[in-house]
Amino acid sequence: MRMALVGLGKMGGNMARRLRRGGIEVVGYNRTPAITAALAEEIGLLPAASLAEAVAALQPPRVVWLMIPAGEATEQTLQDLLALLEAGDVVVDGGNANYHDTLRRAALLRGHDLEFVDAGTSGGVWGLENGYCLMVGGTPAAVDQVKPALRVLAPAPDRGWAHVGPVGAGHFTKMVHNGIEYGMMQALAEGLALLDNKSEFGLDLAQVTELWRHSSVVRSWLLDLTAGALAQDTGLQSIAPVVSDSGEGRWTAIEAIEQGVPAPVMTLALHSRFASQGGADYANRLLAVMRNAFGGHTVQKTDDAAR
Amino acid sequence: MRMALVGLGKMGGNMARRLRRGGIEVVGYNRTPAITAALAEEIGLLPAASLAEAVAALQPPRVVWLMIPAGEATEQTLQDLLALLEAGDVVVDGGNANYHDTLRRAALLRGHDLEFVDAGTSGGVWGLENGYCLMVGGTPAAVDQVKPALRVLAPAPDRGWAHVGPVGAGHFTKMVHNGIEYGMMQALAEGLALLDNKSEFGLDLAQVTELWRHSSVVRSWLLDLTAGALAQDTGLQSIAPVVSDSGEGRWTAIEAIEQGVPAPVMTLALHSRFASQGGADYANRLLAVMRNAFGGHTVQKTDDAAR
Amino acid sequence: MRMALVGLGKMGGNMARRLRRGGIEVVGYNRTPAITAALAEEIGLLPAASLAEAVAALQPPRVVWLMIPAGEATEQTLQDLLALLEAGDVVVDGGNANYHDTLRRAALLRGHDLEFVDAGTSGGVWGLENGYCLMVGGTPAAVDQVKPALRVLAPAPDRGWAHVGPVGAGHFTKMVHNGIEYGMMQALAEGLALLDNKSEFGLDLAQVTELWRHSSVVRSWLLDLTAGALAQDTGLQSIAPVVSDSGEGRWTAIEAIEQGVPAPVMTLALHSRFASQGGADYANRLLAVMRNAFGGHTVQKTDDAAR
Amino acid sequence: MRMALVGLGKMGGNMARRLRRGGIEVVGYNRTPAITAALAEEIGLLPAASLAEAVAALQPPRVVWLMIPAGEATEQTLQDLLALLEAGDVVVDGGNANYHDTLRRAALLRGHDLEFVDAGTSGGVWGLENGYCLMVGGTPAAVDQVKPALRVLAPAPDRGWAHVGPVGAGHFTKMVHNGIEYGMMQALAEGLALLDNKSEFGLDLAQVTELWRHSSVVRSWLLDLTAGALAQDTGLQSIAPVVSDSGEGRWTAIEAIEQGVPAPVMTLALHSRFASQGGADYANRLLAVMRNAFGGHTVQKTDDAAR
Repeated sequence: MRMALVGLGKMGGNMARRLRRGGIEVVGYNRTPAITAALAEEIGLLPAASLAEAVAALQPPRVVWLMIPAGEATEQTLQDLLALLEAGDVVVDGGNANYHDTLRRAALLRGHDLEFVDAGTSGGVWGLENGYCLMVGGTPAAVDQVKPALRVLAPAPDRGWAHVGPVGAGHFTKMVHNGIEYGMMQALAEGLALLDNKSEFGLDLAQVTELWRHSSVVRSWLLDLTAGALAQDTGLQSIAPVVSDSGEGRWTAIEAIEQGVPAPVMTLALHSRFASQGGADYANRLLAVMRNAFGGHTVQKTDDAAR
Repeated sequence: MRMALVGLGKMGGNMARRLRRGGIEVVGYNRTPAITAALAEEIGLLPAASLAEAVAALQPPRVVWLMIPAGEATEQTLQDLLALLEAGDVVVDGGNANYHDTLRRAALLRGHDLEFVDAGTSGGVWGLENGYCLMVGGTPAAVDQVKPALRVLAPAPDRGWAHVGPVGAGHFTKMVHNGIEYGMMQALAEGLALLDNKSEFGLDLAQVTELWRHSSVVRSWLLDLTAGALAQDTGLQSIAPVVSDSGEGRWTAIEAIEQGVPAPVMTLALHSRFASQGGADYANRLLAVMRNAFGGHTVQKTDDAAR
Repeated sequence: MRMALVGLGKMGGNMARRLRRGGIEVVGYNRTPAITAALAEEIGLLPAASLAEAVAALQPPRVVWLMIPAGEATEQTLQDLLALLEAGDVVVDGGNANYHDTLRRAALLRGHDLEFVDAGTSGGVWGLENGYCLMVGGTPAAVDQVKPALRVLAPAPDRGWAHVGPVGAGHFTKMVHNGIEYGMMQALAEGLALLDNKSEFGLDLAQVTELWRHSSVVRSWLLDLTAGALAQDTGLQSIAPVVSDSGEGRWTAIEAIEQGVPAPVMTLALHSRFASQGGADYANRLLAVMRNAFGGHTVQKTDDAAR
Repeated sequence: MRMALVGLGKMGGNMARRLRRGGIEVVGYNRTPAITAALAEEIGLLPAASLAEAVAALQPPRVVWLMIPAGEATEQTLQDLLALLEAGDVVVDGGNANYHDTLRRAALLRGHDLEFVDAGTSGGVWGLENGYCLMVGGTPAAVDQVKPALRVLAPAPDRGWAHVGPVGAGHFTKMVHNGIEYGMMQALAEGLALLDNKSEFGLDLAQVTELWRHSSVVRSWLLDLTAGALAQDTGLQSIAPVVSDSGEGRWTAIEAIEQGVPAPVMTLALHSRFASQGGADYANRLLAVMRNAFGGHTVQKTDDAAR
């Protein structure tokens, strides 16, 4: 199989490598030509200098897989592809798009007789070695066309990828996956913080997390990674207590509201990240002032805090 | 009526003033004699140099009202009073004790034929002018003996105080009152933070809170105080975003767990204060490290954060 | 002043009454003519049989106030008004619209040289007697035109209404107001549930809530209403434990996510309502099954539960 | 090694089996003699008819391992053992005791020159085959005496058990482990509920959970079990949406409050179970009544709900 891969960054580059190892011919295009050239050298990727060149290097029905940022970049690339592709070609979005956008984009492509496949992709920096977990939405015919790539990207040909539903279902499933990830991470972090803070027991968190990896109820890949990280540095004193969030956590929390399905744990994990970013500061200032107003309680001043 | 008041601090001093205004003879005792002397001068309080002297200045059946810190100080004072009081005397605890302690202390006093009354007291620094809201637990006979003081301390003789149940019920009711206070404060603070952060509307929070005081659904005393505070200073830039918590919020959250009754809002208001105090820092460090471990996401260093 | 009021239901009807009491001439239109006729009879409202007739009964610059459902009804009515109104006329939306819709609608009207004013309105069924709290967004000129009505609808001519910002700011402020309301209600309900469940103290919740109305920190209009309701019926045995939610609670929770500002209390109050509506059932079934899978814990069957 | 095992129920019985497979001589005692007899027959356990008989069958320094309920049963058995054991003997508590109780019990035993070891044990019904994850607290000497049993019970001789700290540290670590478990379970359940509720995508949850087991970020043992359960029954219609909770979830939530360390996710997972048990019903009734009081919103009656 020959396919195009648009976007050769951290995720896309590794996926190109895994595709090549699996014998797929990959036409690669990246905005920065040096990255394309390096991969051509390293893995025998067929370099394209433009989207048009990438498309021209394929025979119809073509498969063009996008691994680019979810917003403007995806929007623009799809517009450009409309002019380049032919009826029956398939565009795969492997990024973390909002499923509402995916539904809209699929309708747009359908209007041009193009197929759109959403492939929610999990696995991060470990995907190259372990394979990627792929949640795929689209028509059966379109997914069939992409199948050779899916079988190579997944941890095994028939495991770790699945056609979960119509277009949109892939990104939806990936979004919820990430919401679960938020909750699990937060649960682990809260528990380890309680252990860390209990100084009288002198617990070694690297030991405890390593221990839990074996036959405990909480054993999990996130625990494996945490144990690995704590084995390097248990105190974490050099790490700022600031946690970023990305689109998918927010979308899942909004989805829960729109469905009317409670998701307190996922949602609180998200709000907790907001607080770590300083988002609760005004509310906290106000609470300190209220306590002063009704009870005469002392208010700490910013200057005191900074000292 | 003549009664003793032990503890003449921020709360106790104002209660002495209100009792005197209502014509109650108050024998006052405070660890720091200068405070007692000043109140003797100001309001005609009868000064006592010791607990024994305070007790000796009363006729049985005596009423001794404690306004002292809930822990060791209360414990020790009760022990001392056991040796000084006689059967039928009444001790009132107007502080914020845990109701489990109150139940234990009442049993101790009952063993000496002494009555124990718990008077949960709300109203803070505004109580002197507005009167105190008093939630009273104890036997009917004991509460009857304290009634003249309750009628004067309350906003009106027959309003704002109530005999809510047996001993323990007063502090229990006050504890839950404070739990509700935590939730209401947090709700107000969260909402105002959303308004403050929406810079495109250029809202004036002093105006909005003043507006809401009139006929809105959220009108409340906490809103009145907040409007007053924001009229002085809307930006709150000099206030550190750190919110203290006190025993009663924690006890209410624990009570919910022990009862198996969900109280997510009260509890989250409390945890949110913990986070403002830095209690979430280790968990957040860990989350940043986990994100790096699976996704290669950048971790902010403490030094960067400090810059 | 003469103005049109479109929508004479529970809210609109009472607003018409209050406007009439304040000497405003009100041209009224309602989809069901009988309602219009009844108000014409009762308060001297000028009945209109159609939107066109209502508009025709006004002199430019006209004020047309909408009190109709936020979605399709508002959308359609605005479309109809575009054809009926002239440059300089003002449309007021007093309903609970999402502020994003309001911004979009204002742009639409601006394209026709029409003014749009959003008047977030709080006060519910009590507004007729107490006045309405009005949070108003729009241009200064447009708000000026509506001012005579605002002064009559508010609890007092210069209190309880305010021009809080540009168009959108009114509905935004009202939305957040309702979010705060969710949090406050939940805080009260959680606390009272803890009191109710503590049977050993035999607390009378009608007494406690009445007591708290006087000088406590949690005194508030919601508490006043709760005390009134509990005085009628403390046990609430006939009431189903199901709490509806409306758009504004959801929008506030989504706004917090989009702003990245934590609002755990408002959000949990909302999720808690979802759970009361049965939204947590699938998750709970799954949790019961998981507990069985790892620990062999018994799973309750639906049939058992029904018995 | 020969040791006594007191309590041969669901957990204890399987541990006896695993100990026997590992070549440990096990003297077994259970309140119901038939259970002891059956295990004597099945695995060559040495049956004891009483605690005294069990102790008598061991040579000092003895190891007596308790697998009995955490409250009264453990308390009484320890009292009985005080009279039976000699200085240097070791009692292991493998149950789910509160670590505060463990600290108190250790002090009691220390007063009799007896050693106390707390072995928090995870693994549930799968421990027999997979081995148990053992978090062990105690003095080095005492833990050394128990080591042969730990090496057999664990998944591998040097993996899956650890001496994590002084006595109390084992149960503390196990308690927090279970708190994490609550949070992880809830995160999974919330996410799957969102997938289940999105009927337009027609997702097959058995397929999705099986898929996620391979290379996704959320892969975990709890996911493995969930995938297994959903493969049997995806709809879960026969399962009542009621989730029990046990001591350790509650203790962890209380510990967070006492430490002042936020644990919103663990805590909300717990409160969510309370709600599933009906604990939110009074609060929800009250909220419905409040909405009616201020907004005239309809209240659903219990009878309607039942229909």
